[in-house]
Amino acid sequence: MRAVVCHQAQLTVEELPDLTPAEGQILLDVERCGICGSDLHARTHCDETAADAAALGYDAFMRSTDRVVLGHEFVGTVADYGPRTRKPFPVGTRVVALPVLRTGADVHLTGLSEQAPGGYAEQVLVNASMTMRVPDSLDADAAALTEPMAVALHAVRRGEVGAKDTAVVIGCGPIGLAVIAMLKATGVRHVIASDFSPGRRALAERMGADVVVDPATVSPWASFADSRYLTEAIALAELGLDAMDKLRAVPLLPWAHVMRAAEKVGATPRGPVVFECVGLPGMIEHIISSAPLLSRVVVVGVCMGEDSFRPSMAINKEIDLRFAFAYDPSEFHQTLQWIGSGKVDVAPLVTGVVGLDGVAGAFADLGDPERHAKILVDPAQRPSSAR
Amino acid sequence: MRAVVCHQAQLTVEELPDLTPAEGQILLDVERCGICGSDLHARTHCDETAADAAALGYDAFMRSTDRVVLGHEFVGTVADYGPRTRKPFPVGTRVVALPVLRTGADVHLTGLSEQAPGGYAEQVLVNASMTMRVPDSLDADAAALTEPMAVALHAVRRGEVGAKDTAVVIGCGPIGLAVIAMLKATGVRHVIASDFSPGRRALAERMGADVVVDPATVSPWASFADSRYLTEAIALAELGLDAMDKLRAVPLLPWAHVMRAAEKVGATPRGPVVFECVGLPGMIEHIISSAPLLSRVVVVGVCMGEDSFRPSMAINKEIDLRFAFAYDPSEFHQTLQWIGSGKVDVAPLVTGVVGLDGVAGAFADLGDPERHAKILVDPAQRPSSAR
Ligand SMILES: [Zn+2]
Ligand SMILES: [Zn+2]
Repeated sequence: MRAVVCHQAQLTVEELPDLTPAEGQILLDVERCGICGSDLHARTHCDETAADAAALGYDAFMRSTDRVVLGHEFVGTVADYGPRTRKPFPVGTRVVALPVLRTGADVHLTGLSEQAPGGYAEQVLVNASMTMRVPDSLDADAAALTEPMAVALHAVRRGEVGAKDTAVVIGCGPIGLAVIAMLKATGVRHVIASDFSPGRRALAERMGADVVVDPATVSPWASFADSRYLTEAIALAELGLDAMDKLRAVPLLPWAHVMRAAEKVGATPRGPVVFECVGLPGMIEHIISSAPLLSRVVVVGVCMGEDSFRPSMAINKEIDLRFAFAYDPSEFHQTLQWIGSGKVDVAPLVTGVVGLDGVAGAFADLGDPERHAKILVDPAQRPSSAR
Repeated sequence: MRAVVCHQAQLTVEELPDLTPAEGQILLDVERCGICGSDLHARTHCDETAADAAALGYDAFMRSTDRVVLGHEFVGTVADYGPRTRKPFPVGTRVVALPVLRTGADVHLTGLSEQAPGGYAEQVLVNASMTMRVPDSLDADAAALTEPMAVALHAVRRGEVGAKDTAVVIGCGPIGLAVIAMLKATGVRHVIASDFSPGRRALAERMGADVVVDPATVSPWASFADSRYLTEAIALAELGLDAMDKLRAVPLLPWAHVMRAAEKVGATPRGPVVFECVGLPGMIEHIISSAPLLSRVVVVGVCMGEDSFRPSMAINKEIDLRFAFAYDPSEFHQTLQWIGSGKVDVAPLVTGVVGLDGVAGAFADLGDPERHAKILVDPAQRPSSAR
């Protein structure tokens, strides 16, 4: 089969031996595979991630010296089953699967380990038990978005965002855009999105953000100044001991009075739920220092290496930093159903489709936020038919 | 009145003008005032905190050039009321109060601002509405612990610790010890405490910790290896799609399998709730890198200045960092009731009582973890009667 191999940070199309499904596995003919920010990162920084993973007990994360087929956001059709394997789907059925592959006693990350080649290829192996039929209404382009959208659904769940909460999405790359869509799908009424790029801001609006701001000119926190904060602090003393039962767990500080004041005018004394979807060093400190009191910050953007921040400021504001990663099978399944039913529209996310020969170029193109959100790989597409 | 004045990091006993309660205020004769770690910190590093506070809109936090009477953990007897002020307690009643003072339109932090002199003095002013009668059964020493114990109760609430959760308290100084007591008071069955100091470990046991470890010889996480982790990962595939509804929101990674394996043997797939009560740079990174998956970390120890950590490791483990600060009036009131009823025994915490002349020496003594947990100031005590 033809596949894109990543080795020493180089991406080359190679002819590899065809794959053979083992017991419990299904062989898929890949229809589409999304290019993910973590693929871009793994290409050049996988040794750092491998070291972290090894520290956690998993030692088969890809290293720069490995020969790895990337791609974990794939959709395909059933081509063959392994021996002694239940066959729930007829050959040809369009399916998606969680990108993990069991091989013997081990489980590997598909597309991020030499042990489990990924979806930048004509074929991919999946676990039968982790495979789900794609609803008939859904085309391959949309189905390929199941995996990244499941990441976003998991992040929204980690944030425990209520319908009345205000969500602030910092960074409108593919992850931020997916989070916006999932926030709206779960019924969050007030979603503020922030990005320096006009192209991404336009996409944020298409994904359903209620307010879209350019942080160079408008603070994403500005609307809080209007709707939740009062400039005049109301003294705690006014509340009196009689009101104690009604008080919520707001820390006792003069600058917490603005929150209480907000409560008095009917707003909730909760801070917003903030989604950090940039993943660059300094973003956490930036958010801690600029976000409102009691903000709950869900960190979705992966920032490698060391980062620094001021814990005292986080304490003063009683910030909650929730780090989010991946999803569970039920979230993956839920996401597929929501895309299938139209509850979540992922069409605006797809800004390009390339063949295997176009992957290296697409990695370069993804650096320009004005041009692209998500690029899909179509292994059947030949160079001449590029669109 | 006699009071200890902090100026340019020097503590000196001075004769200050007597205080006069304004409308809504009560004048107390101070019986005891606890010396807090934040007092030690404010003495030498208040300018940093003042800068942070100013950034949050509060500009009257003490600066090194101010002349401030420290002390926010006080108990006293009612001496006088301000004009046009309701008088719920007879003169002489023993009371505690939240350490905030309203002056005109502003509210100041008592004992941490020049505008609101604190409890290292013969007298202190409090808001009538923030004042609570001490139960008759309670002596002044125990009542003086209300404020720091309320900090601990708030931290435990921030952690949303369930009775079946395992709590790990890192650092058994006064804050850690108070957290241990509050964890046990709220019914948490399994509390592990960790400190390098033998003296503090002995106190941790007296405060009710179920397991006390010396991190130099035993990892505080070791008991997790026994009870919750299995060395052999169980493949996700075994769970099958049928089991999806039963799955909880555990991230999909090979190293998350240990959590699923734990669930299979009846343990909960939640990580422990960890209380960071040390407050030194590097502690957050230390906990993130060594704590189990899905740990919820409540940061109670205040670490000033910049700190650094690896967000990627926090993401891989789906760590939750919850920064906790102070308490609300209902938590303060609850704490006083629990100390009064004996539900919480604070007696082991008090390791010394000094007069005003002994405060400077006590600040030095508190550096030795073997000698002291909490030292109380008794303004009526004269140098000759030191105990
Ligand atoms: Zn991805
Ligand atoms: Zn204190």
